[in-house]
This record gives sequence, C-alpha cells and structure tokens, in this order.
Amino acid sequence: MTKLKNDTFLRALLKESVDYTPVWMMRQAGRYLPEYRETRSRAGDFLSLCKNAELACEVTLQPLERYPLDAAILFSDILTIPDAMGQGLYFEVGEGPKFRKIIRTAADVEALIQPNMDDELDYVMNAVRVIRHELNGRVPLIGFSGSPWTLATYMVEGGSTKDFRHIKAMMFDQPEVLHQLLGRLADSVTDYLNAQILAGAQAVQIFDTWGGVLGSREYREFSLKYMERITAGLLRENEGRKVPVILFTKNGGQWLETMADTGADALGLDWTTDIGDARRRVGNRVALQGNMDPCVLYASPRRIREEVGRILDAYGEGSGHVFNLGHGIHQFADPTHAGAFVDAVHELSAR
Amino acid sequence: MTKLKNDTFLRALLKESVDYTPVWMMRQAGRYLPEYRETRSRAGDFLSLCKNAELACEVTLQPLERYPLDAAILFSDILTIPDAMGQGLYFEVGEGPKFRKIIRTAADVEALIQPNMDDELDYVMNAVRVIRHELNGRVPLIGFSGSPWTLATYMVEGGSTKDFRHIKAMMFDQPEVLHQLLGRLADSVTDYLNAQILAGAQAVQIFDTWGGVLGSREYREFSLKYMERITAGLLRENEGRKVPVILFTKNGGQWLETMADTGADALGLDWTTDIGDARRRVGNRVALQGNMDPCVLYASPRRIREEVGRILDAYGEGSGHVFNLGHGIHQFADPTHAGAFVDAVHELSAR
Repeated sequence: MTKLKNDTFLRALLKESVDYTPVWMMRQAGRYLPEYRETRSRAGDFLSLCKNAELACEVTLQPLERYPLDAAILFSDILTIPDAMGQGLYFEVGEGPKFRKIIRTAADVEALIQPNMDDELDYVMNAVRVIRHELNGRVPLIGFSGSPWTLATYMVEGGSTKDFRHIKAMMFDQPEVLHQLLGRLADSVTDYLNAQILAGAQAVQIFDTWGGVLGSREYREFSLKYMERITAGLLRENEGRKVPVILFTKNGGQWLETMADTGADALGLDWTTDIGDARRRVGNRVALQGNMDPCVLYASPRRIREEVGRILDAYGEGSGHVFNLGHGIHQFADPTHAGAFVDAVHELSAR
Repeated sequence: MTKLKNDTFLRALLKESVDYTPVWMMRQAGRYLPEYRETRSRAGDFLSLCKNAELACEVTLQPLERYPLDAAILFSDILTIPDAMGQGLYFEVGEGPKFRKIIRTAADVEALIQPNMDDELDYVMNAVRVIRHELNGRVPLIGFSGSPWTLATYMVEGGSTKDFRHIKAMMFDQPEVLHQLLGRLADSVTDYLNAQILAGAQAVQIFDTWGGVLGSREYREFSLKYMERITAGLLRENEGRKVPVILFTKNGGQWLETMADTGADALGLDWTTDIGDARRRVGNRVALQGNMDPCVLYASPRRIREEVGRILDAYGEGSGHVFNLGHGIHQFADPTHAGAFVDAVHELSAR
C-alpha cells in the first residue's frame, strides 16, 4: 500500500500530537455540490450510484478536489445491510428509502439472511478498494455503518419515520424480538466494518442517527450495548497501524460519559453540546469529533470563521479534536462557505 | 368563581403535599379521540375549531369525560400570536401551518402588529372563559403559549421546518434582527398569558418545542432568556391563589440546571432524561413534569403500568411531580391505553 501522506486525522483520533486540527464534513460527498448532482444524474438512482464502484469513487473524491479535507469517507447508503439481509431496499422519486419486506415479528427476524461480505456486500468492499487506490495515500479513508438500533428503525418501520411507532411498540412489548434483531445486526455490522477495514478503510464510524429518540435506559440497552459489542469485535489494527473507531449518536449529548466507556477511540458530537463541557465530562478516555451546527454554513464566511474559532477555543489546547459539522452538511449549503469553513479550521488551529 | 374541587395539580407544581401524583397529557384533546375527530369535522378546519369558543370548550372537556385527569388545557393553536401579529395563518389540507407573510428582514419585523388581547386575540380569552365556566371547578385549567424562539421558527421559515435554514441564517448573520423579533414576541406572549390568567387560566405552560435544535449558547441567548423575561412579567397570583408557570423545552435535557434558574415553578421533561437524575440536578428549585415516552402507549396496558411505576420510583418520595407524557400523545394511540396510563399513575402513586 502507498504511504499515507496526511495522517493528521488518524493521529488526532488517537490523541497523538498534530500540527493543526484536522477536518472533514459528514455527508461531504453530497447534494450541495453541483458535480455530485451531475454524477448522480448520470448514475440514475441513488442505489445505482452506490453499487457502481467507479461512480462511488468519483463522488467520494469530489469534495477533496475542492477542499483540503483531512479524510475521505466511503460513499454508500446506510441501508446496505438490511438490503443484503433480504429486505429489498428501493427508493421512490422524491421519497425516502423503502423496503419490500418489513420486519415485525420473531419469524420475520428469523427469516433474515446473514449477509456474506464477499457476496451480497461485495460491491461495497469493491468501492472501498477502488477509492483507496485512487486516493493514493493522500488522506485516510473512513469506512462506516449505521448502528444496529438505527438500522432496526428503518427495518421495522419500513422506511423513514417521525414517530418510531412500530419499533418502539416492539421495544416496549416484545423486547426479546428486538434484541434478537439487534444481535443479528451487531454481528453483520461487525463483519461489515471488518471487511471494510480489510478492503482498505483506515478508520470507521458508527452512525447512530436515531439513538437520541430513546430514553437513557433504553439507549443503553437497545443502542449503546450493541455498539459496544461491535467495537469489541473490530480489527483495531491493520497494515501495521491502529484503526480508530468513532461513535456518533445524534442527540446523545446527555450520555457522553457512558459512550466514552465503550472502548471507542472517539465520540462524534452534534452541536447541542458545548465541546469544552464534553471534553471535561469524558476526560482523557476518548477524542472528540465535531461540532459546528451545519446551519452556520448559511451565514457569511466571516461569521463561519468566528464560530470555528469559538469551537477551537472551547475544545482548548492539546490533541484529540477532529473538527466536523455536528450533522451532515445540508443540501442548500453554499460550496464556497464549506471551503471557508475548512480553511478557517486549518488556519485558526495551526500551531 | 366556583371553588376548585381538585387542586392536586396546582399543589404538586408548588411542591406542596399531595395524596397522589396528578396527571395530564400534552395534546390530551386530540386526534387519538374519535369524539375529537367528530367535533373537528363539524368545525371545518383546525383554525375554525380554535376560533369557536363552544367547540374549543367541547374538545377541551372530551378527555376529562373519559379519564380522571387532574388538569384541563386550553384547546388552541400554537400560532395564534403570529396570526394576530398580521402574518395570516392558514392550513392546507394534509399540510402543516402556513403564513401569507413571512418574516425575513428588520422591516418585516417592524411591520408586525403588536396584538391586542381584547381584539385580535379575544377569541382565545373567550374560549378560556367558556371552558373555565364549564369546568365548574372540577380541575384547574392550564393556559399556554409557544416560546418566542419556537414561534419565531414558524414565522421566519413560513411554516414547519426540518432544517431551520432561514431562522438560523438570521440567528448567525443578523442576530440583532432576530433579537428584535424575539423581544416583540416576548412582550406579546407575556400579554397573552396574563390575559389568559385574567380570563381564568390557573397555571400556564410555555412550550419551547424547538429550543432543542440550538447549541447550548444559542439556547440561552435566543430561547431561554426570553422565557425568563416572560416568566418575570407574568401575574403569579390571581383569585387569591398562586398561578404556577411550567417551562417545557423538548430535547432540553442538557440544560435543566439553567432552566431551573429562570423563576419558573416547574420544568417539563421529555422522556430522554431520567427523571431521578433530573431531580438531583435541579434540586429543590422547581417541580418536574413528565416524562413517559408517548410510544409506551403503543405497548400493552400491563407494560404501560410497569413503565409508570418505574418513573414514579425514579422520581422518588415527596411532592413536586406532575405525571405527563414526554411529548404530545400520538394520533394512533389507543384511547383505552391512555386510560390505563392515567389509572396507573393514580393507583401506583396513592399514598
């Protein structure tokens, strides 16, 4: 493998010394970029884009052509695993993801396929290999997966949801069925992330987009526990180098202390938590990633810079900070403003 | 005025001794009740229902006919104030609220009318008077308003929003314009709640539905500060009795300590915070209202009862707890399950 030219991101995740605070943006390959929209329209639908390694690589690299980002992230869908387990994922124009089969009973869980990484999910590993090759050591490549709880919400609701009606009915009334599903998912996610690591991912992030809709007790029992199990099962070293693990629970600010005890190297923060307070709460256990409100990108470059400075100051001295937005960049963000954001992080943090 | 027969709710808010934990449900007059849907269809659209005092009274009392609730809450819309300020609220079938005029500039804020409680908003006070009369001292009547920040999100976005794009652009780039708007709203909300109190409301709740989408700093500056100002301007006594004030910020669990310093009598909690932890954090300063996940009502009555017991135990001994859901009851909740919930609170908390 080619030598990594910029390892600032990996070093910061391991709290090793760095010359500046590294930065990337969740959903950095996305609709706010005209070149992304162009590739996407060539690909046809979203799933075809994810399943075509060359096009997935093309969109992964697009933000790196524009901005001096310190990491690339695999372009893929969060629902590849439920699809590979046999649910039949599809997208309807103007609507969110849908499944042909919906999971509601123990028998539905039983009938799920345990996916093979070299078969149903090989297209993802193929994309990782192509992207890693094309990156040519420029910056590290992040692999990712949805958390078991987050994946389960889509699998049980049959798509996106606002009220989490069916998954929570299952959680409160048939917790054993949900645990069975989450256990199956934890195994699949572990295999999936390990396969991404072996294919070339140099760090991995678990996206727990919907953990924040749970009560504290349910969060620990139905989301965090399974992320902990995955973390324990991951290859933490590959190609002679540590592979850091990042956990991100949106709206998880109340639970950072317990999240820091999972064995993950870093926690992602949304913007509702002050990063200085978060650092005091987690101590030396983990690095922190975040946490500017993506809506700051709607403000002027001057204001963006001010906000970046404020967050850097709040984090304070020392390594262990990866700058990011507190959630994915919005589709209406101005690409110039995203550039002002990345530059501000580098300039204001340079030591 | 008729003597209040059941003042358990008011006593618990003031941390006075009670024989059992009082309970009501946010959105208790709502679509989950067939009798509500029937009245609503007679009224025509939602706004006509709010503007007709007899029908608003009818739906307010409906849940009290079914369940032994300890409080009634005025049936009204959260957007009465922006409408009265001249924005022209309307509802389109199957869609959320919309405004004919949208607020984006200092001139737009300037052009808003300061509403008169005896004129543009008299229909609300009229509903309060009719409901209070019809309640005949059975239980106290709660008045309410949206918080300035929450109202501003609708006023600036032009309706409901998922990304808070325009209001946050204003917040980050033109904070002075937003402060001007929030100041106007704080004055109107103060007048509005005081008029409700004089018309007969015996407690008031400020709903900060969208405060939780802010960073900690922005929450204090753009939401909490204005709720504090309102709280300071409210009539805290009427008819020889204290009028308690409840603040509820959805997803505000990280900020309970600062919320407890506003001078409010009680804080509403959503279900993501453990009520025992919350009590330890706020100490003796405020009572707590909440906090069962409304999705528990999708589970069996046995499970609902178990969850009620768990929350009562977590709160612990002593007064200062008003039981509620952590958010409005969902439209698909089974009315029988809501009844099981109310009964469980009364039975399990009886001292």
